[in-house]
Amino acid sequence: MEFNKIIRIRVARYALRVTRYMSIYFDHSATTPVDKKVLKEMMPYFNEKFGNPSSIHSFGQAAMAGVDKGREQVAEFLNCEPEEIIFTSGATESDNLALRGVISAVKRQGAKKPHVITTLIEHDAVLQPCLEMEKEGVEITFLPVKPNGVVDLEKLKKAIKDNTVLVSVMYVNSEVGSIQPIREIGKIIEKVNRNKLNEWKKGRTKDRGEKPRPIYFHTDATQALNFLPGNTKYLHVDLLSLSGHKIYGPKGVGALFVKKDVPLKAIQLGGHHEKNLRSGTLNVPGIVGLGAAISLLDEETVKNNNAKIAKLRNMLVDGIKKNIPDVILNTDRENSTPGHAHFSFLGVEGESILIALDLEGIAVSTGSACASGSLKASHVLLAMGIKKEIAHNSIRFSLGKNNTEAEIKRVIKILPSIIRKLRGMNPDYKK
Amino acid sequence: MEFNKIIRIRVARYALRVTRYMSIYFDHSATTPVDKKVLKEMMPYFNEKFGNPSSIHSFGQAAMAGVDKGREQVAEFLNCEPEEIIFTSGATESDNLALRGVISAVKRQGAKKPHVITTLIEHDAVLQPCLEMEKEGVEITFLPVKPNGVVDLEKLKKAIKDNTVLVSVMYVNSEVGSIQPIREIGKIIEKVNRNKLNEWKKGRTKDRGEKPRPIYFHTDATQALNFLPGNTKYLHVDLLSLSGHKIYGPKGVGALFVKKDVPLKAIQLGGHHEKNLRSGTLNVPGIVGLGAAISLLDEETVKNNNAKIAKLRNMLVDGIKKNIPDVILNTDRENSTPGHAHFSFLGVEGESILIALDLEGIAVSTGSACASGSLKASHVLLAMGIKKEIAHNSIRFSLGKNNTEAEIKRVIKILPSIIRKLRGMNPDYKK
Repeated sequence: MEFNKIIRIRVARYALRVTRYMSIYFDHSATTPVDKKVLKEMMPYFNEKFGNPSSIHSFGQAAMAGVDKGREQVAEFLNCEPEEIIFTSGATESDNLALRGVISAVKRQGAKKPHVITTLIEHDAVLQPCLEMEKEGVEITFLPVKPNGVVDLEKLKKAIKDNTVLVSVMYVNSEVGSIQPIREIGKIIEKVNRNKLNEWKKGRTKDRGEKPRPIYFHTDATQALNFLPGNTKYLHVDLLSLSGHKIYGPKGVGALFVKKDVPLKAIQLGGHHEKNLRSGTLNVPGIVGLGAAISLLDEETVKNNNAKIAKLRNMLVDGIKKNIPDVILNTDRENSTPGHAHFSFLGVEGESILIALDLEGIAVSTGSACASGSLKASHVLLAMGIKKEIAHNSIRFSLGKNNTEAEIKRVIKILPSIIRKLRGMNPDYKK
Repeated sequence: MEFNKIIRIRVARYALRVTRYMSIYFDHSATTPVDKKVLKEMMPYFNEKFGNPSSIHSFGQAAMAGVDKGREQVAEFLNCEPEEIIFTSGATESDNLALRGVISAVKRQGAKKPHVITTLIEHDAVLQPCLEMEKEGVEITFLPVKPNGVVDLEKLKKAIKDNTVLVSVMYVNSEVGSIQPIREIGKIIEKVNRNKLNEWKKGRTKDRGEKPRPIYFHTDATQALNFLPGNTKYLHVDLLSLSGHKIYGPKGVGALFVKKDVPLKAIQLGGHHEKNLRSGTLNVPGIVGLGAAISLLDEETVKNNNAKIAKLRNMLVDGIKKNIPDVILNTDRENSTPGHAHFSFLGVEGESILIALDLEGIAVSTGSACASGSLKASHVLLAMGIKKEIAHNSIRFSLGKNNTEAEIKRVIKILPSIIRKLRGMNPDYKK
C-alpha cells in the first residue's frame, strides 16, 4: 500500500493546480455529471416541495407527486408497471436486494439448497453477496467468459440444474464494456421454465405435487442504459438493477425492477415504504432526478449519442494504435458499448499512466473506480485470460455524451510521449 | 382502507389549490426543508466536482475532499473520530446496520443466543429488524415505558442478562417527543460492563478462559439532534444513528457512528467502500449536505433555536388548551424536545383534523409519517397507556426553526372551530 500512499499524496498536491485546467473527463463508467436538465428538475424538491412523501398533507402529496412521476419515467423506460419499481440508494443496494431478496424468499418458500448462476466478471456488488451466500450454504456457479469478455451461452445452459433458482448476469461489463447476451439468456431461461412446467403438467416430475419453481433472471444494467435498450420485456428479465449517477442522474439513488410475482424478501426493514420491500424515507430529489435522467434516454437521443461516441472512440483507438507500439485493445469494438476503450500498454503500470494523464488534466481509470487503490489485478481481465502482468498495464477510457473531438486529439497528442517516458523508466521493457 | 382512499382523493383534489396559499409547516419530525446554506454547499457536487470519490484522479479527489469534510463535520458534532462514521442512505439503514451488524458480528464471534434490549416506543426501523431477528432465534426484550413516554431505568437494569449483547433505545421519540435518558443508560451499561470485566479478572466467572463480551449501546438519534447534544462520549453510546433530512439536510443520506472496536458485520456488500462496512458509491452531494447541516447545529444556535421554538410551542399549547375543551396534551413539556406538541382531541379522528388543517394550508401529522395511512393506533401511544380510542384522536405538531408567532396565532384562531365542527358530526361525542 506504500505505492498507493505516494500516489495519493502526489495527486493531492497537484489536485488544486490541475483542477483549474482540468476539463477532460474520460471516466464515465465510474460516474457521470448530473445533466443540467436533470438538476433543474430536482431543485424544487430540496426546499420547496420538501415534504415527506409518506405524509398525508399537501406538502407530502406534492413530494409524492414527484416520486410518482419518477417511478412512471423509470417504468416507461423499462417497459414495465410503476408498481414493479423499487427505489433504492443505488445499484449496489439493488444488486444486494435482488440476490439476497430472491434467495431469502425462495428459502422461506421451502427451497432447500438453492443454486445461483452468475459470472466471473460481475461487479463486486453481485460477486460479494454471492460469496457471502455461498458461505451460508447457497450453491453458486461462477461462469467463465470467452476472451472477448462475453459469457458462453453453452456453458450457461449446462450450468442450469434442478435446484437453480436465480441467474444473475450483468448487461455490460464495467471494465472492458463487453455486452452480455441478456435477451438470449432470458429466452434460454424462459424455455427451461416452460419445459419444467410442461413436464410437471404431464406429471413426469418426481414430485408430482409441487409446481416447479421457475428460475428467475436478474441483470445488473448499471453500465448499459446510456447505450442499450432497457425494455425488460424485450430482454426477458425478471429483475434489473440500475443506478442514477451512471446515467447523468444523481448519486445516492437507484432502482430495482422486480417483475410481478417474483418472490422477494426485504433486507432493509422499517416504515414499510415501497410496498414493504425497502423501508426508509424516499429520497425525493434523487428519485425525481433518476426519473428525469432516464427520460432523457429516448431512442433517438441514444442513437445519436451512440453514433457520436462511437466515432470518438474509434478516433481514440485508431490514434493510439497508430502512435503507440505494444498496445493491446481489450475492448471488443464489435460487442461493447461505444463508450468503452480498455487498453494494455505493455511495460507500463496502468496507475502510472493514470497519474501522468491526470497531471495533464485528463481523467481515466485503471478499471472500476471501486477497485481503485487495490494492487490486485482486475478479476475481469484475469477471467478473460489476460495475464496478470498485462492486466496491470491497463487503463480504461470511458467516453460520454459531452466529450469532443478536440479532447480525443489532445490525448492522442500527449499519450505517446507519456508512454515512452514511462517505458524508459522500466528496465525490463524490451528485454 | 376505503377511508384512506377517500382522503387521498380529497387531498389530491385540493393539493394544487392549497399549495398556492400553503405556508405553514408543523411537521418537522416527518422531514425538514434543506437549509439554503446547506443546499449552497451541495450544489458544486452535482456537476462540477462530480467525480466518484473512489477514483484516483483529480475529479475523484475533489469529490473525496467533500466527503472528507462532511465526515469531519459529523465527527466533530458527535465528538468522535472521522473513522468512526459510516455514511448510509438514511437513519433506517443506519438502524438496520447497527442492529443486524452487531448481532451478526457477535454471532460470528460465537455468541450462541444473543439478547437485545429495546423499547416498545422505537421507530419501526428498529422494531422491525428486532422482530425479524426474533424469528431467527435472537432473544429480544421490548421494554415498556412510563405514562410520560420515558423508559424506566429500573426495568432496563432488571432486563440485563448474561447473554445481553445490545441495548437500543431511541434518543427522542418521534411521536410525542419524549427524551430518553441516554446518558444514564449509557452509564448503567458501562457499569455492568466494568463489573463483568472485574469479575472475570478476579477469575470469578464460570468460564474463566473467555473474556466477557461487553454490552453495546445503540441510540437512534434521528429526532434529537436539532435540539440536544450529539456528543457520543458525553452520552456514553457505542453506536448512534442519524439522518440528513431531519436536520435541514438532504433526504437519502444518513450516518452511523460506530465506536472503534465495536464488532460490526456489513449488510450491503460490494465495492468495499466505508472500510468494507457499507458498499456503494458514496452519495457525495448528500454527504456534503449532511456535513453542512450538522455543522449548523453549534451550541449557540441550538440554544437560541430551542428557546425560540419552546416559546412558540408554549404559545400553541396554552392557546389550544384555553380555547378548546376536552384536549389532552400527550407531550410532557418538562421532558421533550421544544418542537413537539402532541394532542388528543376527544371525540375527533386525528386524520379528520389533519385534513381540515391541510385545507387551510397548515401541515400537521397524526403520528409518524411512516405510519400515515395506517388505521392502526400508534404503538407509541398504546405503550404509554393511552386508550386506543383516544390514540385515534391525536395529532402531532412538530415545530421548527423557521416557524413564527403569526403561524401559531393562525392555528389557535382556526382550530377551535374545526374541532367544534368535527365534534358536531360525531353523535357519540358528549354522550
